Amino acid sequence: MSRLPSRAAPRRLHLNVNILHSGFVPSAWRLEEADPRAFVDVDHYVRVARLAEAGKLDAVFLADNAAIVDQIDFRPITALEPTVLLASIAAATTHIGVIGTASTSYNEPYNIARRFATLDHVSNGRAGWNVVTTADLPSARNFGSAAVPEHAQRYERAAEFTEVVKALWDSWEDDAFVGNKADGRFVDVAKVHPVAHRGRHFDVQGALNLPRPPQGHPVLVQAGASAHGRELAARHAEAVFSASQSFEESAAYRRDLNQRAAAYGRANVKVLAGLTTIIGATERDAQRRRDELVEQIPWNYSLNRLAGTLGIDVARLKLDARLPDDLPLPGGGNGNHTFFHATLAEARRHGHTVRELIRALAGGTGHRVIVGTPEQITDDIQHWFDGEAADGFNLMPDALPGGLRDFVDGVVPILQQRGIFRTEYDGTTLREHLGLARPVNPQRWRASA
Amino acid sequence: MSRLPSRAAPRRLHLNVNILHSGFVPSAWRLEEADPRAFVDVDHYVRVARLAEAGKLDAVFLADNAAIVDQIDFRPITALEPTVLLASIAAATTHIGVIGTASTSYNEPYNIARRFATLDHVSNGRAGWNVVTTADLPSARNFGSAAVPEHAQRYERAAEFTEVVKALWDSWEDDAFVGNKADGRFVDVAKVHPVAHRGRHFDVQGALNLPRPPQGHPVLVQAGASAHGRELAARHAEAVFSASQSFEESAAYRRDLNQRAAAYGRANVKVLAGLTTIIGATERDAQRRRDELVEQIPWNYSLNRLAGTLGIDVARLKLDARLPDDLPLPGGGNGNHTFFHATLAEARRHGHTVRELIRALAGGTGHRVIVGTPEQITDDIQHWFDGEAADGFNLMPDALPGGLRDFVDGVVPILQQRGIFRTEYDGTTLREHLGLARPVNPQRWRASA
Repeated sequence: MSRLPSRAAPRRLHLNVNILHSGFVPSAWRLEEADPRAFVDVDHYVRVARLAEAGKLDAVFLADNAAIVDQIDFRPITALEPTVLLASIAAATTHIGVIGTASTSYNEPYNIARRFATLDHVSNGRAGWNVVTTADLPSARNFGSAAVPEHAQRYERAAEFTEVVKALWDSWEDDAFVGNKADGRFVDVAKVHPVAHRGRHFDVQGALNLPRPPQGHPVLVQAGASAHGRELAARHAEAVFSASQSFEESAAYRRDLNQRAAAYGRANVKVLAGLTTIIGATERDAQRRRDELVEQIPWNYSLNRLAGTLGIDVARLKLDARLPDDLPLPGGGNGNHTFFHATLAEARRHGHTVRELIRALAGGTGHRVIVGTPEQITDDIQHWFDGEAADGFNLMPDALPGGLRDFVDGVVPILQQRGIFRTEYDGTTLREHLGLARPVNPQRWRASA
Repeated sequence: MSRLPSRAAPRRLHLNVNILHSGFVPSAWRLEEADPRAFVDVDHYVRVARLAEAGKLDAVFLADNAAIVDQIDFRPITALEPTVLLASIAAATTHIGVIGTASTSYNEPYNIARRFATLDHVSNGRAGWNVVTTADLPSARNFGSAAVPEHAQRYERAAEFTEVVKALWDSWEDDAFVGNKADGRFVDVAKVHPVAHRGRHFDVQGALNLPRPPQGHPVLVQAGASAHGRELAARHAEAVFSASQSFEESAAYRRDLNQRAAAYGRANVKVLAGLTTIIGATERDAQRRRDELVEQIPWNYSLNRLAGTLGIDVARLKLDARLPDDLPLPGGGNGNHTFFHATLAEARRHGHTVRELIRALAGGTGHRVIVGTPEQITDDIQHWFDGEAADGFNLMPDALPGGLRDFVDGVVPILQQRGIFRTEYDGTTLREHLGLARPVNPQRWRASA
């Protein structure tokens, strides 16, 4: 669907920021500067988005769940619904993209097509949809299911869902709207095409009830790591959030994804690697900040979470003992778990205690963490970018807004000096920021064929 | 659920405005001042909402459909999804309420509870949900149904849906959020209650994944005119949009609704009557404006729409002939049709032609139209308000923003002089504007019982 960009265009680094509540480290809400209510405070999110825009980032991103899926006694959760919150953010910003998560398992395609088309209209072309299938049980139980639908079935539904959404976005040709006051013609109905979809999961007959979004399609984002996830991304995604731990793993993932995409006649899928940053003026400052943040996470929270990720009884983990030798490596269907291996393997190799492992994970469960100075972080980013291990990063600052401020004030200027990151926005849409073409409407081809 | 207001409080007039695209007369987009693209332009909606706020109105309101249900060749349609658009509007205003429509037939309660709770959080307590069951076939066909679900079944689902949504809003006690940095306790999980609902239509187990909305519940609005609709309103609605044509009909509707509500131990349901205004400096100016607007509606649009409302073949309607004598009066399940009778009966009584009837309806299909000076419109509003035929009005100006500007500049100051409408907002939430109490959380009662 996307056209190849001109070969002469230089590669550009892309930076999104995941603006989940108070930041990625679970104790971020306890920092002196933090407001514990930030997770439901629209002003907090607007402040963070404006900071990201001041740093010329491509987009802000909101993850989502449709249930309480973490230990809320100890930490904030994904709470505010992304499309509504992102509309508030779009109203308070002018350039930065707004990417929201919505599940294909617990929604209807007509509603999702409309909401993201609306977000694209109200933001003047800055919307993106992060397509997820939602793998947790609490969400399933909020939508009438006693169990999570099986992995393959979730992805089959997701693929059909995404196709219907794209067809709905294309149901108005780009020039279907006329608005001719003189002759009273509002829309050229010959250019509005009912989608007439009858599939295995969905039956959707009409056209969307609003014109094609400014970007043609809001940017399609996905985060599939499993084989099914990669196929879905290859067919539909224009940007992918990966959680690769190592340069080699990320480079291999990027090659694999682009090969799969090429098989569908597609190209230019941006791979944005997840990256938690903990920044200090010196490396020691950064490490001290990391340790202080981790100390503020209740250890029983961290133990429960680690046990949950490992799929073992929490009683088997002793803080100051080494990891049990006979741990099953997590894996299987859920992509998130695969990113965990490197840190776990390293902890084992060095005979680290559970406490040391939790510290190395900075309280998280697997996205890569860099702890260092702005120079060190810039070097790492440039290494991955120049070596084509990634097209950019999905930043997950330790704390918000503080950790993002440190990035924008410290890292961005160095990236700009090195000429790999924009100093001004040169477009107005998220597609333009990401270097993605506006999809041609296939209705146009069909009509002229 | 709502507590009775203090008896000493004087009755207050409430004014909402339906901000549907270019205005209520289908040709409004053709006015010289109009931008035909307004229906998808967020700046247009923000301009209209700010004007309504300058006029101290209670709320802006967005109707909705989940399909193309009108003749888009001739006129704008409900296009942008309400909750996303209203979030944009809330970000650009400070006091005015934002009420959006969402269907109980084509959504899931968990998603709707979250979206409106989010809208309430991002607007700091200004959200309302207009509960509709969606009676049109094109919408059904966008959600896998070949036919519209039967009336009683739609309302049965709507009742259960609304109960689940309210239970989700109440799933966090008001003080469940703690946010104590010192001891690291974020939420008191003993005060978060899974809804554990297993009903005929829905199975929803968990708690909502965000704290109770600022208003407790976003304001619940409904527009039921049928017996099922009135029962749903009596059980759940805090404000009702009626489309009564006459003072007597509206007064009777209001009495009936409040009696039904009392049977559920409820009181203080606000009846807001639909009202299209066409305003001129003189009565003759206003009539000229009406006639010019109606002349700009293509006659075949008006004939098709009238035939559709009457449920007859359009060939039976001749513009300059009298109405056929043997017309079946429309009615039955769909409330909208009943509002049509008065105008139709009057046209018959006076032997009007079809053209004259269309003119009297101002191109609409049944909401009451007043054509006159600001004084005349004020008199009419005061008559209905003082006589308790309504607690206020849901304004549907002929054109937006022009018709609303005429109302705010012309009618509001007279209402204020007469002391029946606020000169300043004295609260910050939609509940405060409407004089509705914050619902007590039944979880609190259960816990202390």
